[in-house]
Amino acid sequence: MNDFIFQSPTRFFFGRGYTDDTGSYLVQAGFKNALLVYGSGSVIKTGTLKRVQDSLESSGVVFVELAGVRPNPEVELVRQGIEIAREQQVDCILAVGGGSVIDCAKAIAFGYYHEGDVWDFFSGKAKPERALPIAVVLTIPAAGSEASSSCVISNDELGQKKGTNGDCFRPAIAVMDPELTFTLPAYQTAAGITDMICHICERFFSGAGSSAVTDRIACALVCAIIDAGKRVMKNPNDYDARADIMWASTLAHNDIAGCGLSAQPSARAGGWESHGMEHELSALDTHITHGAGLAVIMPAWMRYVCSADPQRFVQFARGVFGLEPAGQSQQAMVACAREAIDMLQDFFSSLGMPSRLSEFGIKAEDIDKLVDMLAATKGERFGGFMTLGREDTRAIYESAL
Amino acid sequence: MNDFIFQSPTRFFFGRGYTDDTGSYLVQAGFKNALLVYGSGSVIKTGTLKRVQDSLESSGVVFVELAGVRPNPEVELVRQGIEIAREQQVDCILAVGGGSVIDCAKAIAFGYYHEGDVWDFFSGKAKPERALPIAVVLTIPAAGSEASSSCVISNDELGQKKGTNGDCFRPAIAVMDPELTFTLPAYQTAAGITDMICHICERFFSGAGSSAVTDRIACALVCAIIDAGKRVMKNPNDYDARADIMWASTLAHNDIAGCGLSAQPSARAGGWESHGMEHELSALDTHITHGAGLAVIMPAWMRYVCSADPQRFVQFARGVFGLEPAGQSQQAMVACAREAIDMLQDFFSSLGMPSRLSEFGIKAEDIDKLVDMLAATKGERFGGFMTLGREDTRAIYESAL
Repeated sequence: MNDFIFQSPTRFFFGRGYTDDTGSYLVQAGFKNALLVYGSGSVIKTGTLKRVQDSLESSGVVFVELAGVRPNPEVELVRQGIEIAREQQVDCILAVGGGSVIDCAKAIAFGYYHEGDVWDFFSGKAKPERALPIAVVLTIPAAGSEASSSCVISNDELGQKKGTNGDCFRPAIAVMDPELTFTLPAYQTAAGITDMICHICERFFSGAGSSAVTDRIACALVCAIIDAGKRVMKNPNDYDARADIMWASTLAHNDIAGCGLSAQPSARAGGWESHGMEHELSALDTHITHGAGLAVIMPAWMRYVCSADPQRFVQFARGVFGLEPAGQSQQAMVACAREAIDMLQDFFSSLGMPSRLSEFGIKAEDIDKLVDMLAATKGERFGGFMTLGREDTRAIYESAL
Repeated sequence: MNDFIFQSPTRFFFGRGYTDDTGSYLVQAGFKNALLVYGSGSVIKTGTLKRVQDSLESSGVVFVELAGVRPNPEVELVRQGIEIAREQQVDCILAVGGGSVIDCAKAIAFGYYHEGDVWDFFSGKAKPERALPIAVVLTIPAAGSEASSSCVISNDELGQKKGTNGDCFRPAIAVMDPELTFTLPAYQTAAGITDMICHICERFFSGAGSSAVTDRIACALVCAIIDAGKRVMKNPNDYDARADIMWASTLAHNDIAGCGLSAQPSARAGGWESHGMEHELSALDTHITHGAGLAVIMPAWMRYVCSADPQRFVQFARGVFGLEPAGQSQQAMVACAREAIDMLQDFFSSLGMPSRLSEFGIKAEDIDKLVDMLAATKGERFGGFMTLGREDTRAIYESAL
């Protein structure tokens, strides 16, 4: 087992109707003056925002609002949020939404203490070391931002989308009410499921060895997600399935599934190859949902790299699908790996996720651009499980066309 | 899934030689003035204490010492520790040892802020709401106290051993260096392994339903412990096996394996029947090691109660041992349950753990006393999975003779 440093300090309030108690959770934690951050769509329509506002009021929590966070949250809104937070001297940032809203809240929380521009953290000029406490009412299980140490923000002016990491901005409180997710459209539910499985796989296939406890937890989580995913597709109001997916999405990304899998103790495990390659799809066409892009890219990446360490894929095949190779030869192990990858992709397809890039309208002539963009973002050679150069990323994109 | 509240805020520094960096971890966390708490045996002989002291000195952490914590730590030493902590105005308590040392440190940490006697927390007069930060250098993986919310202290004057719970005294820092456990005697290693499996099982068989994600994590942990237990018995210096056991012992008891298994969201999952029944064995004969007592009691309890909900035991049998019942009848499920219980007990025996009470010298005529003592401690009827009265506990003890 590799050495690791791990902390997941978030206090989880997980249960039916807990949304209405948000105010009292904040008061318990000593927060009295919040900046309430949210989007512009379903959080208003479904009444979730109103419920949170009511609970803040009845608990005596004073709050100001920052509305209109969009998917791929933009740095200009973060800057506005920092200004409001400073003016109002808030003592916490409360995000009501999914990953985009939470990431916007995180950037406000660490930008609050920074004298320069908040983009400094994303351009690499500054490193988050201190942040206002963050509370979350989670409405979309997918990104895992409710407990993760990561934050991704877009900068329209520069045409960039960048991330930063820091334990200091892991949320202090996460209110997780699975009933809020009953109304999620099937496509969004499926994309979220794909994203969380990918979060686990990026760590599992870090290329930095194995860790028996973590490996078993990782496979346990993937099994639980697949099982719950099948149930939720049959019945979107299946509380237990929704709850399983919600809790698994958190554990998929709070790093419990990465302990001992990183070559650097303080760094997140994994080379994040699929996330990197999907990132460029979304950059090419902003209508491509992150999870849907991953449903195409991750199996393609897996097929391309599995022969570099088929034994690791056999561990996955065994732990998740109960498969065994027909022998210990390289060929038998690769065949077993490929069977598991097919089964994973079949599962994504069964959820309604695409399996080919052409389903997004991406054509052979787009590949050059994707490869160039990827090299610009990740460097000429990147990856943990297997180092990928342009010839490799081209082959992976092409195999997924 | 039942509602739950869960927080495990401990920052884990897990790896080879990390003992020597303890001082810098404290400094990173802002601690400069520690009360160093330890026992009197192996921590000194093995040089671990010296390594920690050296690291504190080289990091500039000032410290005073409280030595001589015994197994089943006594409240009088806790009182002394509180006095020293107040005199020296320390900013943290640093425990170097196993569960007893950590529990002593915890009691000092929350006793520090209490005007009355610290026993008030164990007699039920007070509830821990505030504590000094606690740091731990773990030397024995078993009790899980390095991340748990529990603390057990003995009071020789009253002839009592009592526990209290509180999230406020979960350790802030846990330094986990698997190499420190290479020198643990085989019997202590085995007792620790039994204890951690029991921590998982007490939660799994809470009697308050199931939770797919947690159930799978629980079975994954038990599998990992059994596998690593076999390896460590063959080679006590197998680093990965030692590391797997150490990390699993933490996750067995930090409540990640109980999320959604408690009928009360803020309470620990499980009826803790086996722990309760074992407690009286240790009270009858203080030479009985907790884990060794559990190796006898838990299978006996399981056999007695499994027919109350054989389906739950089949889940365990399937998840841990890959067993399937030969049909859906009650009889088939109980048979499957019993096969799993036998396999679990065989595993304990393979580690050198006892399987009968007579191996401790306990005789039929002692049972009356055990039943009486248990009723006095836990009440006339107790338990989660199945309510146990005197006739039940008598039958369980007798079946284990």
